[in-house]
Amino acid sequence: MDRYVSVKDIEQAALSLLPKGARDYYKSGATDEQTLAENKLAFQRLRIRPKCLVGVERCDLRTRALGSEVSMPVGISPTAMQRMAHPEGELANARAAQEAGTIFTLSTIATSSIEEVAKAAPTATKWFQLYIYNDREVTRNLVRRAEIAGFKAIALTVDTPLFGIRRADVRNKFTLPPHLRLANFDGHLSTKIQSTDGGSGLNKYVENLFDKSLTWDEVKWLKSITSLPIIAKGVLRGDDAVKAIEAGCSAILVSNHGARQLDGVPASIEALPEIVEAVKGYNVEVYLDGGVLTGTDVFKAIALGAKMVFVGRPALWGLTVGGQAGVKRMLDIFRTELEYTLQIAGTPTIADITRDMVRHESAYSKL
Amino acid sequence: MDRYVSVKDIEQAALSLLPKGARDYYKSGATDEQTLAENKLAFQRLRIRPKCLVGVERCDLRTRALGSEVSMPVGISPTAMQRMAHPEGELANARAAQEAGTIFTLSTIATSSIEEVAKAAPTATKWFQLYIYNDREVTRNLVRRAEIAGFKAIALTVDTPLFGIRRADVRNKFTLPPHLRLANFDGHLSTKIQSTDGGSGLNKYVENLFDKSLTWDEVKWLKSITSLPIIAKGVLRGDDAVKAIEAGCSAILVSNHGARQLDGVPASIEALPEIVEAVKGYNVEVYLDGGVLTGTDVFKAIALGAKMVFVGRPALWGLTVGGQAGVKRMLDIFRTELEYTLQIAGTPTIADITRDMVRHESAYSKL
Amino acid sequence: MDRYVSVKDIEQAALSLLPKGARDYYKSGATDEQTLAENKLAFQRLRIRPKCLVGVERCDLRTRALGSEVSMPVGISPTAMQRMAHPEGELANARAAQEAGTIFTLSTIATSSIEEVAKAAPTATKWFQLYIYNDREVTRNLVRRAEIAGFKAIALTVDTPLFGIRRADVRNKFTLPPHLRLANFDGHLSTKIQSTDGGSGLNKYVENLFDKSLTWDEVKWLKSITSLPIIAKGVLRGDDAVKAIEAGCSAILVSNHGARQLDGVPASIEALPEIVEAVKGYNVEVYLDGGVLTGTDVFKAIALGAKMVFVGRPALWGLTVGGQAGVKRMLDIFRTELEYTLQIAGTPTIADITRDMVRHESAYSKL
Amino acid sequence: MDRYVSVKDIEQAALSLLPKGARDYYKSGATDEQTLAENKLAFQRLRIRPKCLVGVERCDLRTRALGSEVSMPVGISPTAMQRMAHPEGELANARAAQEAGTIFTLSTIATSSIEEVAKAAPTATKWFQLYIYNDREVTRNLVRRAEIAGFKAIALTVDTPLFGIRRADVRNKFTLPPHLRLANFDGHLSTKIQSTDGGSGLNKYVENLFDKSLTWDEVKWLKSITSLPIIAKGVLRGDDAVKAIEAGCSAILVSNHGARQLDGVPASIEALPEIVEAVKGYNVEVYLDGGVLTGTDVFKAIALGAKMVFVGRPALWGLTVGGQAGVKRMLDIFRTELEYTLQIAGTPTIADITRDMVRHESAYSKL
Repeated sequence: MDRYVSVKDIEQAALSLLPKGARDYYKSGATDEQTLAENKLAFQRLRIRPKCLVGVERCDLRTRALGSEVSMPVGISPTAMQRMAHPEGELANARAAQEAGTIFTLSTIATSSIEEVAKAAPTATKWFQLYIYNDREVTRNLVRRAEIAGFKAIALTVDTPLFGIRRADVRNKFTLPPHLRLANFDGHLSTKIQSTDGGSGLNKYVENLFDKSLTWDEVKWLKSITSLPIIAKGVLRGDDAVKAIEAGCSAILVSNHGARQLDGVPASIEALPEIVEAVKGYNVEVYLDGGVLTGTDVFKAIALGAKMVFVGRPALWGLTVGGQAGVKRMLDIFRTELEYTLQIAGTPTIADITRDMVRHESAYSKL
Repeated sequence: MDRYVSVKDIEQAALSLLPKGARDYYKSGATDEQTLAENKLAFQRLRIRPKCLVGVERCDLRTRALGSEVSMPVGISPTAMQRMAHPEGELANARAAQEAGTIFTLSTIATSSIEEVAKAAPTATKWFQLYIYNDREVTRNLVRRAEIAGFKAIALTVDTPLFGIRRADVRNKFTLPPHLRLANFDGHLSTKIQSTDGGSGLNKYVENLFDKSLTWDEVKWLKSITSLPIIAKGVLRGDDAVKAIEAGCSAILVSNHGARQLDGVPASIEALPEIVEAVKGYNVEVYLDGGVLTGTDVFKAIALGAKMVFVGRPALWGLTVGGQAGVKRMLDIFRTELEYTLQIAGTPTIADITRDMVRHESAYSKL
Repeated sequence: MDRYVSVKDIEQAALSLLPKGARDYYKSGATDEQTLAENKLAFQRLRIRPKCLVGVERCDLRTRALGSEVSMPVGISPTAMQRMAHPEGELANARAAQEAGTIFTLSTIATSSIEEVAKAAPTATKWFQLYIYNDREVTRNLVRRAEIAGFKAIALTVDTPLFGIRRADVRNKFTLPPHLRLANFDGHLSTKIQSTDGGSGLNKYVENLFDKSLTWDEVKWLKSITSLPIIAKGVLRGDDAVKAIEAGCSAILVSNHGARQLDGVPASIEALPEIVEAVKGYNVEVYLDGGVLTGTDVFKAIALGAKMVFVGRPALWGLTVGGQAGVKRMLDIFRTELEYTLQIAGTPTIADITRDMVRHESAYSKL
Repeated sequence: MDRYVSVKDIEQAALSLLPKGARDYYKSGATDEQTLAENKLAFQRLRIRPKCLVGVERCDLRTRALGSEVSMPVGISPTAMQRMAHPEGELANARAAQEAGTIFTLSTIATSSIEEVAKAAPTATKWFQLYIYNDREVTRNLVRRAEIAGFKAIALTVDTPLFGIRRADVRNKFTLPPHLRLANFDGHLSTKIQSTDGGSGLNKYVENLFDKSLTWDEVKWLKSITSLPIIAKGVLRGDDAVKAIEAGCSAILVSNHGARQLDGVPASIEALPEIVEAVKGYNVEVYLDGGVLTGTDVFKAIALGAKMVFVGRPALWGLTVGGQAGVKRMLDIFRTELEYTLQIAGTPTIADITRDMVRHESAYSKL
């Protein structure tokens, strides 16, 4: 794994290794993929203002999220169907997170089940990403199982009444390879994604099964069936963050769903300050995913108010190049880069990363 | 038609199919074509701010324009001489609009006549685009025939005292292929465009026949000869919108004529807010054409105050690749993309698309 | 000449025809040539706001400069040594200006003399560009001859204590081809440019002969020896424009010397508003050269306050492709493009082009 | 050397001559190298506003830094291990600075010793760049030797608790070629850099030996052991500049360490105004390095408040192409370009370069 010096190295290797169907599924964004590009470019428009000679001999990356300690503020975002990347899929991913001392978030539409993941990575901090199905019994069953299996939070996806248009999937008529299954639905729903003439099989799956009528009241129902804290995943507006909190959420994950839902929405790092501003005075945590590729990206998100960042595709690229070891390498690169960043920026602990450590590039045009 | 997944797909296919003369005529913009590019780029500078969990199970794209209901806020803008793209030209285009439940606008300089179009698409909502000819009897005749044929509005072009310089047409010495005719002038004026040594034959045609002395008083004359509502097509300034209204227009079509008249003018989506602001308090509708390529573009225009958008070139590309079916496919792509956009943006009906759903990217530089 | 549809067409043809030494001399800008590019790009950042239906049947491009009527507000800027482009050099250029009814400005370091030009284009409005030589008798002689030959103004270059670094000339060890001469110095100074080991021969020439100690007092001296109006050519700051006026200049030519003096200075169209603002209340005219390539560029400069624009390199490209006929074609293209622009913009005369016809693109980011 | 007309010419030649290990070491920036690019691009966003006719016959580039007169405000920044570029390394570089009448700054981790450099360039103004080692005796020894050898100032690097991640060095497992030594440590520490499996040998060296616990108090300790003035090298924030002054520093070198420490920090020319503003009222000098490539860059930095600029990589490129003569050529190009700039800008002396001579490009968007 030593040959991978940056997360981009891992990404490039993975893109050359994956079969077309899986590669396109993982890498695509919605329609014209402008937001996909902006998720990365927006980080480049932020400047870090390092402090000199502050004494950084005791550099410490640890932080806490919803009460759990993590070894660094970089966790694993949920992504679907990880066994397309590696035979051990979610299990390898979760084991790497456990090894790295950080959070693993399991997707509802995973190719490994809640119980399999819990067994594979028993001491990892695990969160469960939830889609609410039309069939509320199916939904309730998922939540109950996650709770029993020791998952520590529910990351409720709030931006997906249906899946966005990803043109490559439409062209490929995407479907889950036949040897894989949506493992969380054994005995409840079909675990296959049917091929369809009209385009992506996954979009059809979602259209048939997800509930489009959801409102913030759904959070109240969720709270009535679980004692786990609920994270609103997919918020891009300050007013929605407040609604999430008032409905009972404990945290906000600022996310544009990897730019896969609606093209033209803000980069997640662009949206972050508005949400942080809106939740001031509430006792909630704010996280971010989308476009995070380097240790300096992590630093910038934290300076703008995120408690943690999460990475989705980088874990898929890690899985592809080396299963658990590949994900671990990816996390190690983030850790190293973040460690260097904290020391050179003169902020030896996460708590030292205050708002004034980062400025938008436009501030440097005011001469 | 399934292979076309985006409007851009259709465009690319059409550009490879069309003969050079027609292709250049359809695709060109004025002189350096900066505005041609900006018409698209300006949409990319706008961000959509989606709302989560609002309940989108009853998504409805319908809206009304000048009293007619349309199935979605995307109609067909007038473009000239459509039989260069397909033997059925304007007839196929109008039929597709009828099939899709939206508005078809017929050009004065069409290769199918008012009556032919009315017969081909009897139940479509049809508007007639009008150029005012030096010979007012010719002009009056056009308006009267449109009225008799059941057209519902006159879209008066207000930005064309002469045609802009399109360099490819000058180089090609553009002329209408000999087997085609300007069908609205049978028995009145020449239906041919003469070739000329000095460049584009069409520019010469326009210079000979159009009236350059027009002022807003012309609208009053028009109103004296027809009871149809009049749309001012080609407005880019707030003060002109007010003049249009005061002269009796019922609607403003914000347009830079497909960037074909004067290079360096604003993108139409850039000009829209100024016009919307200027007409506040007046009972008029505002539309937009120019650079609309995706469902998110439509959404952005509506959020900034347009009641409908119109597409011109996309219909030509559709005609080229498949006649009526090609135009229908193009409209279906817009419909699907807009449907997805409304659901994911949390605005299930057109009326839900309020101003705060869109922000200029520069707003995200104010950290 | 018909094959040239744009000024850029002529430029491209000329660049392929010229020998390397002359081509590099004509086209180069100072050092990294950033301003050379910005001179053009800055025009693209301005938007024209056309007015509709104003009645443009009487379009008139005529204007006046320093009391002379010109057929359009586009004249010929001085450029050196035009016989490198065509055997008839300045004579052909001046004849084209005469034919087109506009102003020709002759360079001090021309390859045709004041008297030759006067004879070639007796009815043209001719201005004489002046460099002040260490030897004031030489300088006085130039001014007196221009006055006798019927030139109407002195365009005093104020931005050239020495010539800027044009790297290609340094590499080429530029020198005037041996069959040509600096025709204004017959019998006074050497009419040759000596080759030198240290780089451009022209830079050495200028360093030896030009007076670096010049101040605005020099204008007073000039006024004492001539009754011709004096234009300050090369001003880029408002305070300098005021100094020029107070020293007795009748007009300001906003110019960065074709981006040939100092890289990193503003594009001339960027600097124009500051100068126009500064001279408000004074009875002077403001002109511009630098980067003007199209009729819309001319329009933008006039909207921002220029009375006329001048073009230098375009005349050299015209000379190269066809002598007098090439320059005439270039001017005809400007005339046509400007005529179209005035009509489509709804400003049928030059006086109609008011400040509000143009806006900086950044104004469209304030949504 | 005459064939090199710009510093970029020298850079290009050097990059083609150097072996991969040294080339990558010299040219790399931290991680994604965004700041490496911005260091240059940020200069291009500044415009020079030249003044006309001010009398520039007595152009004088001389200035003073910490009491020493220099022939121009361009000195040599410290860079490590210069014998990788040329067998005479730091000696040739120092001799060129002496020949050019400007300052040479020697790196702690040089391949020539303090004493060797002093002997090679006895009359040059020499400064010593200091890293503080864990072993304070080693550090004290360096300072004492520099003082004895006649160095005039200590440039204390304040931005380097450890070395940044330069990916090429990691891939190359960078190490000092075996025939070279870190010459300042003969008899004190190892003079070799050990190769390591984990990436760059230099990073490991630094991690082992540099003191990460440094605070601004270290400056006080330094002042207790030397009477030389201390320059804080690597400051990018106004508040840090004030801390440096309060700790006893006599000057601030605004620098991002050649963009080699932390990617995403401001370009040094972007950071300069904030530091200049912060130190107003204190009796200190401010310098800059990073991205300076042309005479106009030097001018811009001085206009924004720098007393001098320093160049690091350009000297390495000069060494590579021609040892002392190559560095001399590089300095001569800067001198010539700066001379031209001062004359054409109408600021014949360094003191004439006031703040209003430069404006950010964004100021030209406020039409």
